[in-house]
Amino acid sequence: MKIVFLGAGNLATHLAPALQEKGAVINQVYSRSETSAKTLAQLCRCDYTTSPDQIKTDGELYLIALRDDVVEKTLNKLEFIPSCIAHTSGSLGLHVFPEKFKHAGVFYPLQTFSRNSSVDFKSIPFCIESNSEQSLSLLMKTAGLISEKVIEITTEQRNQLHLAAVFANNFSNHLFSLSVKLLKEKNIPSDLLNELILETSRKAVYTDPESAQSGPARRGDLSVIEKHLKMLDSHPELKQLYRMFTDSIMDQYGKSL
Amino acid sequence: MKIVFLGAGNLATHLAPALQEKGAVINQVYSRSETSAKTLAQLCRCDYTTSPDQIKTDGELYLIALRDDVVEKTLNKLEFIPSCIAHTSGSLGLHVFPEKFKHAGVFYPLQTFSRNSSVDFKSIPFCIESNSEQSLSLLMKTAGLISEKVIEITTEQRNQLHLAAVFANNFSNHLFSLSVKLLKEKNIPSDLLNELILETSRKAVYTDPESAQSGPARRGDLSVIEKHLKMLDSHPELKQLYRMFTDSIMDQYGKSL
Repeated sequence: MKIVFLGAGNLATHLAPALQEKGAVINQVYSRSETSAKTLAQLCRCDYTTSPDQIKTDGELYLIALRDDVVEKTLNKLEFIPSCIAHTSGSLGLHVFPEKFKHAGVFYPLQTFSRNSSVDFKSIPFCIESNSEQSLSLLMKTAGLISEKVIEITTEQRNQLHLAAVFANNFSNHLFSLSVKLLKEKNIPSDLLNELILETSRKAVYTDPESAQSGPARRGDLSVIEKHLKMLDSHPELKQLYRMFTDSIMDQYGKSL
Repeated sequence: MKIVFLGAGNLATHLAPALQEKGAVINQVYSRSETSAKTLAQLCRCDYTTSPDQIKTDGELYLIALRDDVVEKTLNKLEFIPSCIAHTSGSLGLHVFPEKFKHAGVFYPLQTFSRNSSVDFKSIPFCIESNSEQSLSLLMKTAGLISEKVIEITTEQRNQLHLAAVFANNFSNHLFSLSVKLLKEKNIPSDLLNELILETSRKAVYTDPESAQSGPARRGDLSVIEKHLKMLDSHPELKQLYRMFTDSIMDQYGKSL
């Protein structure tokens, strides 16, 4: 299978070589940035281009791994109808594709990618959606090359999944950031929290977050809660977050203030 | 070294056998609950009691692993002056000990413990504090039997560490809970988030949370943010959390609404 990549960022840099390793042929890489295009093309030993009108027309699958806000623009510059095309976004619908694209879909891997850390796609869920049976099957097959967790979901479900992922990843990472900041204020080595942070995720995943919940709010331990709120007097923003979480946890577990 | 345990809950159940395995002798277990006392005593092949006045007086170290709100009460029931005694709480000070206890301290392992999941103490930080050099050294040595990360910190630092741990563990676990709830609403299998949750922690620990931050708020992607806020119209509590996190992240990374 010949795949053309549109985009050469974090996701493409992990995804293209992984697919190639499992037998797909990366045919070409397109990116507006010559450096990115060239780097990924070298990794995949294939051609690259920075001009939309130079994108090869004989690919069997076009995978778009661009920023959400340039996907539609880039699609409109394509001068041919691709045999099968899919974007990799959590929040874009199928409507971004021109109507004449009869085999278009979504190929969304639910994970956070960084350029410098390696990725094992095997356990990463791929959420697939398509406007045709033929491309649905091609996209499922392609995802199946590298992942053991390929599912078909609707746009509405994918939007909800993306929203849930913002809570689970973006916001919890920000909590980690805020906690490290609290340590630095009192000259406490910030790596002291590492094991706790790792265990937090493991416990949530291997038991479940509802029963893994612990802490003063879960226990309804008002003396600790009041002490903490007082310690946050000089951090109104953190104090507000502390209150909101405490209320929400106490509410969930039937404790009341 | 002969150790008497006061308390037979989650922490004691992990800590006592781990210390015993490294050569300490658990001499006796005290708990108000006979079932808990007996279970842990059997595990450690030692005596137990449910009466404070039956606590053995010849222990070299007394470790208190009781709920914060019963520590002081229990201490006041002791009819002798222990040679060395320490509590394991993140938020209690040294002042809970009667003044006549000249060798008292804190032996605080920074981790979340559940009865049914196993614990490897090796990488768990033990935060030590004491009112005497002699007991400081005994507590450091005891923690060093099972952990490679033993540090001396002040009460103020420990309080701050405990507060930071509430953000890093309790609150992020609650976010995981909320995100699973969002999935269930749309009949999405909740284990789809597992890999993302595990990677969130790994990335925060192995790079750092500040540079690991991703998502619409980090990118200043207003169209996604507005879409998400609209999706949360029927969840005012989640909507408020979403707003607070988004503001806080945008603020930290110099994006503005």
